[in-house]
Amino acid sequence: MSATDPNCLFCKIVAGQIPSRKAFEDEHLLAFHDIHPWAPVHVLIIPKLHIATMAEVGEQHAELLGRMAVLAPRLMRELGVTNGFRTVINTGPDGGQEIYHLHMHVMGGPRPWLKG
Amino acid sequence: MSATDPNCLFCKIVAGQIPSRKAFEDEHLLAFHDIHPWAPVHVLIIPKLHIATMAEVGEQHAELLGRMAVLAPRLMRELGVTNGFRTVINTGPDGGQEIYHLHMHVMGGPRPWLKG
Repeated sequence: MSATDPNCLFCKIVAGQIPSRKAFEDEHLLAFHDIHPWAPVHVLIIPKLHIATMAEVGEQHAELLGRMAVLAPRLMRELGVTNGFRTVINTGPDGGQEIYHLHMHVMGGPRPWLKG
Repeated sequence: MSATDPNCLFCKIVAGQIPSRKAFEDEHLLAFHDIHPWAPVHVLIIPKLHIATMAEVGEQHAELLGRMAVLAPRLMRELGVTNGFRTVINTGPDGGQEIYHLHMHVMGGPRPWLKG
């Protein structure tokens, strides 16, 4: 596993080669608004490190995954989501993963958007 | 926030007062098969600590959340899921949360079960 993948869309967003509407950034993580939102508020939280999928995640990534999880409620509060949200990570073909750079969908806002 | 809530269904499962089909247990976490599965393999990963929702999660929980995340792919491998899975945490009314003890759904198996 390399730190970045030059062909990866999300690595290009991390590098600033492709623009995004950022919601948060620090040394380890980037969060930005999904360009095809499924919900009134729909943010993606990604590690800056290129990890293709959750299937590759091991003990050495626990701290990074913990940071991602803790950021989710903080971002929802900052974005004015007060009545709940849903956090989803899709992994592999059966999980419906579309971009092969690990990402957590965080979706909030009134309920009709819920698909399941 | 107390360590356990005597009225909480999942705290009762942790305590062994309500039976469950366990997939994993250690000092911090319990994983068990959902009694109403949405997928061929549908496991819930919960912290033994009673945390009602992701909305209550802060920096002090990062390590625990990281452990939960890392357990998901490990369990899917152990349960024979080879082609992907989906990880979901529902938070609050708009997130569709039903049991107010933090839990991560991990759902794998062939794709028709996907709802969104």
